[in-house]
Amino acid sequence: MKMQNDLLLKVAKGEPVSRPPVWLMRQAGRVLPQYRALREKLSGFKELVETPDLAAEVTIQPVDEWGVDAAIIFSDILVIPEAMGLSYEMAEAKGPYFPATIRTAADIERLIFGEPAADRLEYVYEALKVTSRRLDGRVPLIGFAGAPWTILAYMVEGKGSKTFGIAKKMLYAEPALAHRLLERITETTIAYLKNQIRSGAQVVQLFDSWAGLLGPAQYSAFSVPYIERICREISADAPVIVFAKGAWFALRELAAADPAVIGLDWNTDPETARTETGGRIALQGNLDPCALYADPDEIRKLTGEMLARFGSRHIVNLGHGLYPDISRENVRVFVETVKAFEYQPV
Amino acid sequence: MKMQNDLLLKVAKGEPVSRPPVWLMRQAGRVLPQYRALREKLSGFKELVETPDLAAEVTIQPVDEWGVDAAIIFSDILVIPEAMGLSYEMAEAKGPYFPATIRTAADIERLIFGEPAADRLEYVYEALKVTSRRLDGRVPLIGFAGAPWTILAYMVEGKGSKTFGIAKKMLYAEPALAHRLLERITETTIAYLKNQIRSGAQVVQLFDSWAGLLGPAQYSAFSVPYIERICREISADAPVIVFAKGAWFALRELAAADPAVIGLDWNTDPETARTETGGRIALQGNLDPCALYADPDEIRKLTGEMLARFGSRHIVNLGHGLYPDISRENVRVFVETVKAFEYQPV
Repeated sequence: MKMQNDLLLKVAKGEPVSRPPVWLMRQAGRVLPQYRALREKLSGFKELVETPDLAAEVTIQPVDEWGVDAAIIFSDILVIPEAMGLSYEMAEAKGPYFPATIRTAADIERLIFGEPAADRLEYVYEALKVTSRRLDGRVPLIGFAGAPWTILAYMVEGKGSKTFGIAKKMLYAEPALAHRLLERITETTIAYLKNQIRSGAQVVQLFDSWAGLLGPAQYSAFSVPYIERICREISADAPVIVFAKGAWFALRELAAADPAVIGLDWNTDPETARTETGGRIALQGNLDPCALYADPDEIRKLTGEMLARFGSRHIVNLGHGLYPDISRENVRVFVETVKAFEYQPV
Repeated sequence: MKMQNDLLLKVAKGEPVSRPPVWLMRQAGRVLPQYRALREKLSGFKELVETPDLAAEVTIQPVDEWGVDAAIIFSDILVIPEAMGLSYEMAEAKGPYFPATIRTAADIERLIFGEPAADRLEYVYEALKVTSRRLDGRVPLIGFAGAPWTILAYMVEGKGSKTFGIAKKMLYAEPALAHRLLERITETTIAYLKNQIRSGAQVVQLFDSWAGLLGPAQYSAFSVPYIERICREISADAPVIVFAKGAWFALRELAAADPAVIGLDWNTDPETARTETGGRIALQGNLDPCALYADPDEIRKLTGEMLARFGSRHIVNLGHGLYPDISRENVRVFVETVKAFEYQPV
């Protein structure tokens, strides 16, 4: 398929571009009235995730609305625990909840994993196919999954938590158990991402949302090796973006895992990230989502400062997902500021 | 008063000691059955905070139980908003809640601040006096307050939050308003800490619990200057410990604010912290609280590694508060490992 806009793919491959591409984490969502209108007709979040035609529709909404340079499939990282045998409930206000959790070796033995688990996510692959067909090369389509540590955190804790103390307790008290679970999540994730790529995902992002809950030694032991394995198995098929929120201390190790792109949260300054990642990996990010609460002039100023500091090999994004109460006009100012930017010839 | 154990005071002043002192954030609390027994007889958390005799009792419990090298007064950072006119409710499971919040200039104008606000916290000063008398020089007594940004976050948001989006929105959308509120919180905090010191606090700690929610530029604008002012006004009276959770990116600036001690969360490795703070400030921390879920041998190993990496000018602590479900025997192993340690003669 001929891509009309391949800015993101080029940056991921290290090829020169005239301006950086821009997309936003959680760009398909409650900021858009067309999303809210569709969502109101449904029983809940999961119906949207599990209905390919509707998932495709909301995936494309931000491309139509703002002209962002990539679409990211509308889904959730928690489809993986579900495919492995732990179904989740999504309460809009309270976040995800797992009626059953993993605490023992027997719990792990009962899980489905690898290809048989990944094969249960047909609705995601179908959503990618429908989206890909409808996008018809307008912009690249991004697939995604949670990084194994973050998925373990939910499977063990059973819900969102400020500390994820139950999940972290497993790492300290039963490290062998944690590694066995991480292995199985990793195998499932690899099969899942390969299926996503076969179904039309041209880039995939790994979300390590709870990276920052681990100290450097634990992150190094329980997260990085699994991310590295995923990068190794997937990179030949599609570029991998690794977004490890709060893991500033592990940038060097993450760069060694050799993803195509490293995503940064808004705490991490671009200069430090460039140094730590050795300059050879594209960086993605990292405006504070709350900066979009500012007035348009201030948004232009903050976006311009960020662009100047990152320099080339940059995929513009926020440092975290878009918040639902941000104005869509302010998002437009952000996107248009990036699209009006031009790299100076060297 | 003659101090029998002045290890913490010596380290804060840069004097040599034979081993590092050890205490734990949130050491007085639900880990201890004697705390739970007392707490069950009361109407709630606030009754304990506001009854000097009982606050003194739970303050001393960890000194009796584990022989830690410091007591920290049992209180809450949210007494400051309350003294300024915003009372809080504390639901054990859900955390703090403010029925009224600050959103406008008029809301700020209505606040009491400075000495008149600080003077409303007589129950804290009385708790310090009672504790100091009962401790009778066994170990130093630590007073504390929230850093101004963290207090603003609660006063504007009105409750705990994953993103504190409403509070951060004020920084981006109405920075002048935010600064006016920060000024008033700072003036109140300075008066409050001076009163605490007069009442027996020998060291004070500033908790910037939500530091990590701000990016470097915002932290530099909205938190550091106020911390700096507090350090400048207080340091002549007592050493100041600054614990800015998640603010690894600001260590250099925090060191320039010239506190006696900088507290570190468990994400920050001691070597980086030593370099960033220029080697001339004592460091406090930073074992992951979840490490105390491990078995005793592993706790000894992890504690030993931490001790070796910090070297001298170290106050041993956790990288965050003790979690309520950690075993008190494991805390004992941690404390005893530190107390058995000896610095090698140089």
